[in-house]
Amino acid sequence: PDVQNYPDSRKLAIDKVGIKSIRHPVRVADKNGGVQHTIASFNMYVYLPHHFKGTHMSRFVEILNSYEREISVENFEDMLRQMVKRLEAESGHVEMNFPYFINKKAPVSGVESMIDYDVTFIGEIKDGEYIQTIKVVVPVTSLCPCSKKISDYGAHNQRSHITIAARTNTFVWIEDIVRMAEDNASCELYGLLKRPDEKYVTERAYDNPKFVEDIVRDVAATLNADDRIDAYVVESENFESIHNHSAYALIERDKKAS
Amino acid sequence: PDVQNYPDSRKLAIDKVGIKSIRHPVRVADKNGGVQHTIASFNMYVYLPHHFKGTHMSRFVEILNSYEREISVENFEDMLRQMVKRLEAESGHVEMNFPYFINKKAPVSGVESMIDYDVTFIGEIKDGEYIQTIKVVVPVTSLCPCSKKISDYGAHNQRSHITIAARTNTFVWIEDIVRMAEDNASCELYGLLKRPDEKYVTERAYDNPKFVEDIVRDVAATLNADDRIDAYVVESENFESIHNHSAYALIERDKKAS
Amino acid sequence: PDVQNYPDSRKLAIDKVGIKSIRHPVRVADKNGGVQHTIASFNMYVYLPHHFKGTHMSRFVEILNSYEREISVENFEDMLRQMVKRLEAESGHVEMNFPYFINKKAPVSGVESMIDYDVTFIGEIKDGEYIQTIKVVVPVTSLCPCSKKISDYGAHNQRSHITIAARTNTFVWIEDIVRMAEDNASCELYGLLKRPDEKYVTERAYDNPKFVEDIVRDVAATLNADDRIDAYVVESENFESIHNHSAYALIERDKKAS
Amino acid sequence: PDVQNYPDSRKLAIDKVGIKSIRHPVRVADKNGGVQHTIASFNMYVYLPHHFKGTHMSRFVEILNSYEREISVENFEDMLRQMVKRLEAESGHVEMNFPYFINKKAPVSGVESMIDYDVTFIGEIKDGEYIQTIKVVVPVTSLCPCSKKISDYGAHNQRSHITIAARTNTFVWIEDIVRMAEDNASCELYGLLKRPDEKYVTERAYDNPKFVEDIVRDVAATLNADDRIDAYVVESENFESIHNHSAYALIERDKKAS
Repeated sequence: PDVQNYPDSRKLAIDKVGIKSIRHPVRVADKNGGVQHTIASFNMYVYLPHHFKGTHMSRFVEILNSYEREISVENFEDMLRQMVKRLEAESGHVEMNFPYFINKKAPVSGVESMIDYDVTFIGEIKDGEYIQTIKVVVPVTSLCPCSKKISDYGAHNQRSHITIAARTNTFVWIEDIVRMAEDNASCELYGLLKRPDEKYVTERAYDNPKFVEDIVRDVAATLNADDRIDAYVVESENFESIHNHSAYALIERDKKAS
Repeated sequence: PDVQNYPDSRKLAIDKVGIKSIRHPVRVADKNGGVQHTIASFNMYVYLPHHFKGTHMSRFVEILNSYEREISVENFEDMLRQMVKRLEAESGHVEMNFPYFINKKAPVSGVESMIDYDVTFIGEIKDGEYIQTIKVVVPVTSLCPCSKKISDYGAHNQRSHITIAARTNTFVWIEDIVRMAEDNASCELYGLLKRPDEKYVTERAYDNPKFVEDIVRDVAATLNADDRIDAYVVESENFESIHNHSAYALIERDKKAS
Repeated sequence: PDVQNYPDSRKLAIDKVGIKSIRHPVRVADKNGGVQHTIASFNMYVYLPHHFKGTHMSRFVEILNSYEREISVENFEDMLRQMVKRLEAESGHVEMNFPYFINKKAPVSGVESMIDYDVTFIGEIKDGEYIQTIKVVVPVTSLCPCSKKISDYGAHNQRSHITIAARTNTFVWIEDIVRMAEDNASCELYGLLKRPDEKYVTERAYDNPKFVEDIVRDVAATLNADDRIDAYVVESENFESIHNHSAYALIERDKKAS
Repeated sequence: PDVQNYPDSRKLAIDKVGIKSIRHPVRVADKNGGVQHTIASFNMYVYLPHHFKGTHMSRFVEILNSYEREISVENFEDMLRQMVKRLEAESGHVEMNFPYFINKKAPVSGVESMIDYDVTFIGEIKDGEYIQTIKVVVPVTSLCPCSKKISDYGAHNQRSHITIAARTNTFVWIEDIVRMAEDNASCELYGLLKRPDEKYVTERAYDNPKFVEDIVRDVAATLNADDRIDAYVVESENFESIHNHSAYALIERDKKAS
């Protein structure tokens, strides 16, 4: 018999065991009706009770390769359920991290270009229940209110990363999460800007200064008001243009906790 | 008055706000009585109640620069307490991540060389109480029991990272945490090995095969038996030599939880 | 007029100016007749003569977005030529880095799975001439001949990265470059291995020990014998399983140099 | 005899062979008379003639460990010469990459704080001759002249990395290379800024807009005028605050080439 099936006498269950950092092509549906082909890095783990010596590592890879060439996001929950079943596990955990693109119109000229976001789908099965979290890193502009206020002209600004990890009770588009971050930044980013667009984003950021604290609070307020979201962590990291370190803030909330 | 001191009407407290990824020289005491000079990357955060608009970012940097040139690990708790006090915060969180060196004797020749470990000290003040966690990434050799068993000769082996994050109720040397990981691997690593040493480590790993599951269980058993440790997360990531992905396992336990 | 068009009096030409680290979806033709969708990171630069103050950054992004949604590898040279023309430059340089997948059959069971490679296409236009370089990072197994020879049993082995950067005078498939690396390793990698496959790769590596020096020499001999390749750099980095550092070797040759 | 000493019949010399990514403590003298303790990552390679099967990997590690605990920068050339001698090589190459700190006074308040730079010393022995290159990555602020000109108020600015790699014919302080970069940016960075300092750097950057092209040209002009420098590569990468990609420029010159 397989070494993995030997009984184990150490009486120690393993919370997560499986494979990490395996890349595979995936297919994601767009909010605008299209389909995106992208590349994901997967982490796939199951819970292992104390009386089993080991899991079956090759089965995780089999599951990844059992779909047609690309894994579709619609199959994400199914893949997780299959994994738990085939590994004979009580609970399981899959993370799927991939770049995602949104086609945007520049604010004045309307010229179109794509911009990329870093997205992670996290699915868990616990006691038969499926829990999904979507995490998106949204690059934005932040402009410092203090610098604006104390200076006769100008204000330091920089690229910032707003990260939203949201546990959802229904389907939510990646585009919707991105919007919640971009609407609460000093200004959103674009791939391509013509001169009138560049004037617009420069003035827009100056008119809309935000501390890192303001950004996470404004995003949190938006997430609080959205009933599709049960729990969240929102972070902002501002890669300060006047320092060699970041300003950082985080708010975390579970609406379902008492 | 400072913009940061304005009242805030959004009614949203911020769990963590501060600075991230700032590097500073530090000094760490060795178990053998020496002192190591190394370079740390710091994250420093405080809790911000809902009625304050912002924190004082420059004070975090002032605290880092208020010690003599190097920050000593003996000052770590003091620095955290100072931070909480000067930022007028109820709670605070500091992470200090640095490379640490241990001088080792090769197992047969006894020739000496240094090897590096990635260490993080995490300190928290909550309700006046100080909580310290030490996290160490220990690179080791793992050798696959299944590959050994089914093959007429040889066995695939590889570098693995055992990560121990331990909440401690007293002082614990970095060297002690490293030892818990190295003793439970197929074999430990060295910077410098002569030919008889290389023979020794090759045969030692072959005589001592371990699945990723075995590694985390054996480390967990060691951590369970050590009364200085109140809670822990132990992970092992094996960078499989026969695949382009990792095998991974994690055990987490809070001994103080009911 | 645009600030970029102002004359510049510093008398300093710029070797490369443009955009760096911009991601965009691409489409690559398979050797087996299929088409792969993947995500690339682009660097796009032109030469700027001393009398021009600046280049037109937005045109680079326009070129990327001027194709249908995905950029096809067949359009790579055309895109480079367009870039040089639209930027009114004498010379230009494009790098396109993306993950690429090959479907492999396991050596005994024949079970299929995909494995990923890191690929970069580098195109240059100099004096009207087009020069293409293809660079592939191929993860493999290396097994140490010294460890095998001196040990009574076992031998340390590990994952290694063989990197081939080849200047080609005709079209060469990514699959062909990958093959040159995999055939010269102790053993190639697979996504999915059943037990008889794991026995095979374990014994194959043990039967086929290679120093880092052997790997680069054997790959270099293969590249020397291939008339499609005009110049190359081959590297091997072995992530030693008995140390916390790598063994490394590099051979570089320009066959067209006198 | 050692396997490494066997003759090799493939007739292929190896340009570089040795060890990569090994960390070791080092000691660097300050321009102001002090001594800095820091941690370096080393790459150490020699040339291997075609008739030798392999190099002696363990000797590289022995050399690193043969100094007192920390390697001093004054010993850098000596270490390289020793390496070439002990490996019986004609030529050799050492790279030593480490974080380095400079204590700075804020521009108005004069408050002091440290800031870190990424430094690499590259030493080569070729035909008995010693060649040294110093490479420094200097983080700075860049402010866009176009954005300033077309906007009624504000201007986008961001953190940028100016990288200078200079081949020198005499000793040059790290501090001197850093100065060449900082003096040619829109503004330099500081760890700690009080309010009057923040006003100063904000206005200074606004008064001193620079395209990525301006930055590399102004640094190149400084390097051209400095007789201690025989050859250089200067790069600037601006992490644009209005895009999710970088603007980039590079100038390269060998003053000793005809």
